[in-house]
Amino acid sequence: MSSQDRYDPNTFSALSYHDGLDDFRAGKDNPRAYLERCLATIAEREPVVQAYAAINETAARETADASTARWRAGKPRSSIDGMPVSIKDLLETKDMPTGMGCAAYAGNFPKRDNAAVWALRQAGAVILGKTVTAELGGAHPGPTTNPFNERCTPGGSSSGCAAAVAARMVPAAIGTQVGGSIIRPAGYCGNVAFKPTQGGINRGERQATSMSTHGVHAGNVEDMWRVAIEIANRVGGDRGARGLSGPAMAPAPVKPARLLVLRTQGWPDLDEVSKRGFGELLDGLANAGVEIIGREERRSLEALERALGDARNVCNSITGWENRWATRNLVDQHPEGVSARAKAALADAETMSVEDYRAALLAREYAQRCHAALRGVADAIVSLACPGPAHEWLGDQPGQPLAPRPTGDAVFNYPSSMLFAPAVTVPLMSVGGMPVGVQFFGQQHEDARMSAHARWALDTLTPVTV
Amino acid sequence: MSSQDRYDPNTFSALSYHDGLDDFRAGKDNPRAYLERCLATIAEREPVVQAYAAINETAARETADASTARWRAGKPRSSIDGMPVSIKDLLETKDMPTGMGCAAYAGNFPKRDNAAVWALRQAGAVILGKTVTAELGGAHPGPTTNPFNERCTPGGSSSGCAAAVAARMVPAAIGTQVGGSIIRPAGYCGNVAFKPTQGGINRGERQATSMSTHGVHAGNVEDMWRVAIEIANRVGGDRGARGLSGPAMAPAPVKPARLLVLRTQGWPDLDEVSKRGFGELLDGLANAGVEIIGREERRSLEALERALGDARNVCNSITGWENRWATRNLVDQHPEGVSARAKAALADAETMSVEDYRAALLAREYAQRCHAALRGVADAIVSLACPGPAHEWLGDQPGQPLAPRPTGDAVFNYPSSMLFAPAVTVPLMSVGGMPVGVQFFGQQHEDARMSAHARWALDTLTPVTV
Repeated sequence: MSSQDRYDPNTFSALSYHDGLDDFRAGKDNPRAYLERCLATIAEREPVVQAYAAINETAARETADASTARWRAGKPRSSIDGMPVSIKDLLETKDMPTGMGCAAYAGNFPKRDNAAVWALRQAGAVILGKTVTAELGGAHPGPTTNPFNERCTPGGSSSGCAAAVAARMVPAAIGTQVGGSIIRPAGYCGNVAFKPTQGGINRGERQATSMSTHGVHAGNVEDMWRVAIEIANRVGGDRGARGLSGPAMAPAPVKPARLLVLRTQGWPDLDEVSKRGFGELLDGLANAGVEIIGREERRSLEALERALGDARNVCNSITGWENRWATRNLVDQHPEGVSARAKAALADAETMSVEDYRAALLAREYAQRCHAALRGVADAIVSLACPGPAHEWLGDQPGQPLAPRPTGDAVFNYPSSMLFAPAVTVPLMSVGGMPVGVQFFGQQHEDARMSAHARWALDTLTPVTV
Repeated sequence: MSSQDRYDPNTFSALSYHDGLDDFRAGKDNPRAYLERCLATIAEREPVVQAYAAINETAARETADASTARWRAGKPRSSIDGMPVSIKDLLETKDMPTGMGCAAYAGNFPKRDNAAVWALRQAGAVILGKTVTAELGGAHPGPTTNPFNERCTPGGSSSGCAAAVAARMVPAAIGTQVGGSIIRPAGYCGNVAFKPTQGGINRGERQATSMSTHGVHAGNVEDMWRVAIEIANRVGGDRGARGLSGPAMAPAPVKPARLLVLRTQGWPDLDEVSKRGFGELLDGLANAGVEIIGREERRSLEALERALGDARNVCNSITGWENRWATRNLVDQHPEGVSARAKAALADAETMSVEDYRAALLAREYAQRCHAALRGVADAIVSLACPGPAHEWLGDQPGQPLAPRPTGDAVFNYPSSMLFAPAVTVPLMSVGGMPVGVQFFGQQHEDARMSAHARWALDTLTPVTV
């Protein structure tokens, strides 16, 4: 690992798109030139980072040229017109294949756009490539490495999405989360990221599971919010959901008056350095005048912690059951095209009964009620986005048992997923030279408020380096 | 039309499966012989009825033979083991193509089973064929004719499903409903049918719209219920929904104490004969001791009627928006493979904004709250399943404008669809020699109670012939 790769949140400069718009307007820069810089970074870093499953440079250049013409004419379609955006390889794009990180989908090229991709194109964005996903959005990793240490996972399943943004290859990327696939890799890679309230962004023909959401990785809150809202304003949320709404630009920073600290699954196992770092972060919040509320102060918070006590199993049961028939069909058709990890998850799901599934749904609903009961008690919950820094993973070792979680543990993400809560992570910590994200998550539909708190935290707090 | 085709609900004998199980146990009959009788009926009637898009006789015979062996051994997998069931051609089946009534899907053969089909196979059912659907579950009809008058529509979009059961080709068939695609064709064809509470039966990989449900056509309530519960007990409901639950056999008949009569959209336009027939049916209910409650007696019922006042537009807006990107992708890829009717619906949907969609969702939610407010006031709502008897439709006429609704009007079905309410229709009327269904629909998750009321009505009331 070269020292330039060590991550320092105080000095790392993420790519921004919105910062450059004045230069577009003034004719000093343009989307085509911006794209070329992204492509140059990709050419430089992709051999090690391996963030992409596919890139369509020709289409990207054509779109960037069209956008350049619009900016020159003073008529951009939106504030993200010309923005290079990469798409997790679970979502269909009409000009690139969709491999889903799964051998069974090799050569899959349905030549249609996911609703979110369609919306991005309407807004003028440049669909640059497909980023690597863990197989089918699950646990079996692709080749992507962490841009700050090639021996470490970038997280998953939105692995390439996280790495491409962190490596400054692209200012934003679309990921998806069921358990922790947006927020965790963003935490490991030092990105800003947004998992909306469940149903916030239209998943189109890929309805996936009852806990799946589209979300955004970016270098800053402004870019993150603009991408999300430009999509939602065009295609809305999931079927039956009102979808994300809010201002066209990112909400102004808002200091939270009170924040809750949850200490659920995963905290006892967290390394001492990360624990100390998070403690320092809480001190920073307190010094800034934010009241920090823990379980000892609120019985209702303790109730929520208990309701989330088995979040991992609840989330995995729900997801396993809901994926069961699709995965079974896939395995039956392509016995060699699905990993042993995915087959093991299927075998677990196939031991479940309808009643097991119903029990998991009830547990989820009860946790959501406990969370709703805290409305007004605090502005948000503050937590780590990932259980410490990314760990090393150098591939499955012949003859050894499969590592259960090569892309890291979603244990700090199950709560917001299970609660259908909007979550925003920001890069406010580094532990041993690697990023560790800090997330804010809140009541359903408080997406704009979470963005405002996240922005305030980035503007106000001194990042913690431990 | 031959006189034998005229429908008389007093004399028509629908196919039953459960009535024959004692003969299976006694060795007097068996599923293979039952299947052969179905195939003989299909051979006789299919040239005119045209209910099927595909039939797999070989696979059906093999499955029926395996079931016959299980019954002989005294070890059937379930009470529907060996039952021939046909599947609406929107649902994937691994041994038959899935054409969706749409030229763009010609040759589509994904070789996998929809979750409900998987469950039926697990229960031992014989998947006999794919029944014709109106294009993509919409308004553009297939070739199927009404078994009681070949000049008339069987209804849609579950056209073949309705006609196959009514023509005694098969004892049960799986249909789907968004606006009125299960209950209306059942009403036109004299079937018993069940549209469960929204989310009641797992739609598998075809998640369709927020108002879509799988449901069952059958010759009687017992067969209908058994098919539905055997599916739900194996694969549950939709993602995030608890799904249909209830007894393994159809609930015993229950006389409703009080029934509400809704007079919403469609009633002013109903033909006088059908109006008179429904009046006679209400008289029959009253004579049986059921209290009939109309809007003049309950302000809260009047509120529900008002909330449903624009049900057609609300349902069509929601469905149009939710299908918009999938249909756009299809039309872009197959410009000649999609009907002018579907393209017109897409053009309507493409005029909508996210806010239009949100307004329609709010209208739906408000109607559901008005309905929930009536819980306890009555046992169910009683209504016609279709606006009078099936009308004639002999195909599009060259040079003439497209008939907007060749499969009949769903105006009497939008309320239960919009309310996510369980609905059961029973053949208790004929008008001019054609069937007209009478439906009972109730509070969400009262599926078993609706079946019990429907069964009581069939057992107790004298069918109305006008």
